[in-house]
Amino acid sequence: METTRSIGVTEVALRDAHQSLMATRMALSDMVGACADIDQAGFWSVECWGGATFDACIRFLNEDPWERLRTFRTLLPNSRLQMLLRGQNLLGYRHYGDDVVDHFVEKAAENGMDVFRTFDALNDTRNVERAIAAVKRVGKHAQGTLCYTTSPEHDIDVFVRQATELRDIGVDSIAVKDMAALLKPQVAYDLVKAIKDEMPQMQVNVHCHATTGVTLVSLMKAVEAGADVCDTAISSMSLGPGHNPTESFQEMLEGTGYVADLDKVRLADIKRHFAEVKPRYQQFMSSYTVETEIFDSQIPGGMISNMESQLKAQGAGDKMREVLEEVPRVRKDAGYSPLVTPSSQIVGTQAVFNVLMGRYQILTAEFADLVLGYYGSVLGEIDPDVVEKAKAQTGKEPITVRPADLIDNEWDQLAADAAALPGFDGSDEDVLTYAMFPKVAPGFFATRPEGPKNVGKDPAEVEAERVAAAAKDAGTGPVRTSIKYEVTVNGRKHSVAVDPA
Amino acid sequence: METTRSIGVTEVALRDAHQSLMATRMALSDMVGACADIDQAGFWSVECWGGATFDACIRFLNEDPWERLRTFRTLLPNSRLQMLLRGQNLLGYRHYGDDVVDHFVEKAAENGMDVFRTFDALNDTRNVERAIAAVKRVGKHAQGTLCYTTSPEHDIDVFVRQATELRDIGVDSIAVKDMAALLKPQVAYDLVKAIKDEMPQMQVNVHCHATTGVTLVSLMKAVEAGADVCDTAISSMSLGPGHNPTESFQEMLEGTGYVADLDKVRLADIKRHFAEVKPRYQQFMSSYTVETEIFDSQIPGGMISNMESQLKAQGAGDKMREVLEEVPRVRKDAGYSPLVTPSSQIVGTQAVFNVLMGRYQILTAEFADLVLGYYGSVLGEIDPDVVEKAKAQTGKEPITVRPADLIDNEWDQLAADAAALPGFDGSDEDVLTYAMFPKVAPGFFATRPEGPKNVGKDPAEVEAERVAAAAKDAGTGPVRTSIKYEVTVNGRKHSVAVDPA
Repeated sequence: METTRSIGVTEVALRDAHQSLMATRMALSDMVGACADIDQAGFWSVECWGGATFDACIRFLNEDPWERLRTFRTLLPNSRLQMLLRGQNLLGYRHYGDDVVDHFVEKAAENGMDVFRTFDALNDTRNVERAIAAVKRVGKHAQGTLCYTTSPEHDIDVFVRQATELRDIGVDSIAVKDMAALLKPQVAYDLVKAIKDEMPQMQVNVHCHATTGVTLVSLMKAVEAGADVCDTAISSMSLGPGHNPTESFQEMLEGTGYVADLDKVRLADIKRHFAEVKPRYQQFMSSYTVETEIFDSQIPGGMISNMESQLKAQGAGDKMREVLEEVPRVRKDAGYSPLVTPSSQIVGTQAVFNVLMGRYQILTAEFADLVLGYYGSVLGEIDPDVVEKAKAQTGKEPITVRPADLIDNEWDQLAADAAALPGFDGSDEDVLTYAMFPKVAPGFFATRPEGPKNVGKDPAEVEAERVAAAAKDAGTGPVRTSIKYEVTVNGRKHSVAVDPA
Repeated sequence: METTRSIGVTEVALRDAHQSLMATRMALSDMVGACADIDQAGFWSVECWGGATFDACIRFLNEDPWERLRTFRTLLPNSRLQMLLRGQNLLGYRHYGDDVVDHFVEKAAENGMDVFRTFDALNDTRNVERAIAAVKRVGKHAQGTLCYTTSPEHDIDVFVRQATELRDIGVDSIAVKDMAALLKPQVAYDLVKAIKDEMPQMQVNVHCHATTGVTLVSLMKAVEAGADVCDTAISSMSLGPGHNPTESFQEMLEGTGYVADLDKVRLADIKRHFAEVKPRYQQFMSSYTVETEIFDSQIPGGMISNMESQLKAQGAGDKMREVLEEVPRVRKDAGYSPLVTPSSQIVGTQAVFNVLMGRYQILTAEFADLVLGYYGSVLGEIDPDVVEKAKAQTGKEPITVRPADLIDNEWDQLAADAAALPGFDGSDEDVLTYAMFPKVAPGFFATRPEGPKNVGKDPAEVEAERVAAAAKDAGTGPVRTSIKYEVTVNGRKHSVAVDPA
C-alpha cells in the first residue's frame, strides 16, 4: 500500500472560532474545562490568543489578556500555543515603533507563546519583518502569512513571490490565510502546489473560514497539493462564518493516504464541552448560513454587519445596497488590498462615507493614510485623483518607505504614560496593553481588581429577560400601571386599576 | 486547455431538504413562490415528491399529495420532476401487491412525474423490479438505488454487484444514496469509479446528506470518479441533517475541469425565498450541528430522535446510552441491513424493546418479519436464536422468495374499501392514498374540503405564544390567579388577591 502522510491540525476553538461566531466574547472561565482534552488530543498547535481576543478581554470581559495567556500556558503544557499577530500593528490598529514590536514579541514569548502567525493586511512583507525577526531572536516559531484575496492584480505567481519574500525574511512556515472563505478547491491546490514547488522544505499551513461552504474541499485539495497543517474548529464551534469542523477534517482523510492523528475520544469531549457552553453566548451569535455571494462581492460577513450598523447609526439603513456596490470600487481605487483587519474596516467605512456624502467628498483619516502609503504598499495602482484628495485633506505627502521607518522608538514614552495611570501594575505587559489600546486600557486598569466578567448568560436567564421585556411591551404583566381587573375585596367585586406593589 | 465536463444537479429543496430539516412540514403554498426560479435555474431534475411528503401532506397539512404533484407539474414545465419511491413499499410501510405498484407508478407518471428514484431498504433488488418495470412501461426515467452503508458485509464489490443487478433490471441510471452521510471521500471515489468501470455508459447520481460534515468533499471525489449528477439543496435549506448547499457545489467546481451550469441569479432568488420562509418552521427544525459520531454508531440523526421519544414515552429517557450501544448489535443480529426507512425504524424500535424488556424478550411484529425474510434478503447471517424466537412468537416460517410473491393482487379490494369512505372522490389517486395510509386517509378524505393547512407560523406569533406561556408559568401576567397586589380602591390601599377579569 501507499504510505500515509501525517497532516497536522491547528485547533482554533479558543481564538478564531469564538471571534468569528460570537464576537470574541467567550470568557476564559468557559474555556478552561476543555483544556486538558485539547492538550491531549494531538493537535499540531492550539490557537488561543491574539487577533481580537486581546481587545475583547479588556474592553468587554475585564480580563487581563496576559493572565489569559499564562493560564493557557499552564493548562496546555504539552501544546504549541499559537497566536495571530498583525505584524507592525501588533494587536492594535496603528503601526508601532520597532522597539514596541520587539517588546511585545519578547513578552508574549516569555508568557508562553510558541507560534506567531504574523500577517500584514496588505501582504506588504516589510510590515512583518521586524516582528518575525523578534520571534526568531526569542527562539520561537515564526509563521509568515499570505492573506488570500482575488483581484485583477492577484494570481498564483504574485502569492508565490510574496512567499519567497517571507522565506527570505526567515519564516519557519507559511500560512495561507483565507479569512473570507474565497479560496476555492482548485486554487487551493494550485497555490499550495506552487509554493511547495518553489520551496519543498517549507511547512505550509492553510487557514480557511467556512462562510462560503466550499472550503473543506479546499483543505482536501491543499492537502493533496502538499499542505502540512490545516486549521479547524471543534464541530460544536464550527461552520457559518467560523471554520470547518475538526472531526470532519479528520474523517474526511480516511483512506486517502493522508491522516490526521487526533484522539477521537478527546475530540468528542471537547465537542461536548463547547456544545454546553455555546448557548450562553446566543446573544452574540452571528446568524448561521452559507453565503456564496461573497465570491462576487468580496465582502466578508463581519464587514457587512459593521457597515450595516454604521449606516443605521446615520439613519441610512436603506442605503446598504449602494454601499455593497461601492465597496469593490473603493477597493479598486485603493489598489486592491486584501480585505482583512484593518483594511476591511478602512475600505468599508470609506464606502459608507462615499454613499452618504458623495464619492470621496470626505476621506476618513485612515483611508487617506491607506492611499498615501502609510499602511504599506499595495499591488494595484491607486487612483491619482483620490491620492490628490488625500494630500489636500491631510496635508501629508505619499510615502513609499516602510511606514514604521517614520515612527521613532516610543517605548519609553508609552511606559511613562502608562505609569501615570491608576491601577497600572508596573509590568511591561501593562505598558503593552496601554500601547495597544490607549483609550480602553485606563478604564481596564481601574476596574481590573473586580476580576473577570463572564458576559455569557444562561439561556433560561436570557429567556426570562426577554419575557419580562416582552411582557412590559405587551402590557401583559403587572409592571404596567393601571391595568383594569375585577378584584374581590372583603367579598365584594370591584373594577379597579392596579399598580404593582 | 482540458475540456470541461458538465455535472448535473438535482435540487432537493422541495422534498428531502424540508423532510430532513423541518419534519416534512413545508406547505405547498410556501414553495410555489420559488418554482419559476427553480424551473429556470438549469437543474438536471427537481426532487419534489415522494419520501415522507405524501404521508405528511395527508397527516399534518390536509393537503392532497396528488394535487401537490399536479401543481409542481404546472409550475415547473421545463423541469424533470423527481420522486423518491420505496420500491414495493411505494410510499407506505408495507409491501404491496404488484397490481398496486403498477397503478401507483402509472398514476404518478400521469400526474407529471418524470424520474422515479426507486430504492429498497435492504438493497434487495427483487423489491424494486416491479416498480422499475412499471416506470419503463410508462416511458419514464427509472433510477435504481444503492443505499450506502458500512458493515463487515459491505464493500465496493458488493455494491458493484448490486449495481449490475439494477442494470440488468433495466434502470436508466443508478443513484448512490447516502442517507446518513457515511460516504467518505475516498470511498465515494472508489465506489463511483468501480461502477463506472463496470458500466461506463450508466448515468450515476450521488445523493449525500451533510450530517457528518464531510460529504461535499465526497461529492467532489465522486465527480472526479465520473459521477454525472449530484443532489444538493439551496443554501438557505442546506446543511445539518440536510444536504450540501447548491451554490457551494457549483462554486466548488470552478477551475476543476467540471462545471455545474446553473443560473446564479436564479439561485440567489431561490435562496432568498427559502430564507424568508424558513423561520416560519422554526418549531419543527432539527438542531443544526455536525455529528461525526454517526461514523461509529451508524445511527442517523432522525433515528436517534425517534428512539429518544420512544424512551421518554416509557419514562426511560435515561436509557439512551444503552440503546445506542444496542443498535449495532441488533443490526448485526438482523444481518446488517442498511439503516433507512423502514429498516432504521424497525431496528431502532427493537433496540429500545431490548433495553426496556430484556434482549429479544419481545420482538416487534416488524422486526420478526425482518428476520424471517418478509422484507427481503440481507447480506449477513441472521442470528439463528433470533429467528427461532421470531418463529415462536409469530407462528410464521422464514421465507426466501420475493416477499411480494406471497401477496395477492389487492387493487380491487382496496378500491372497494376506499369507495366506502366519506369524502372519497372516486379517483384511482384516492384509492392509492387509502392504500398507502389506510388509517390516516379516511380522516383526510373527510376534512379535505376544508383545504390545505399551513402549519408554519410567523416568528412573531410564535414569540407571542412563548411569552404568554412563559408569563403564565412565571406568574408575571394576570393569567395566574390570586397574585397579591397593593390596590387602591376609592382612595384606600388594600392588600388583595387578584383574578383576571
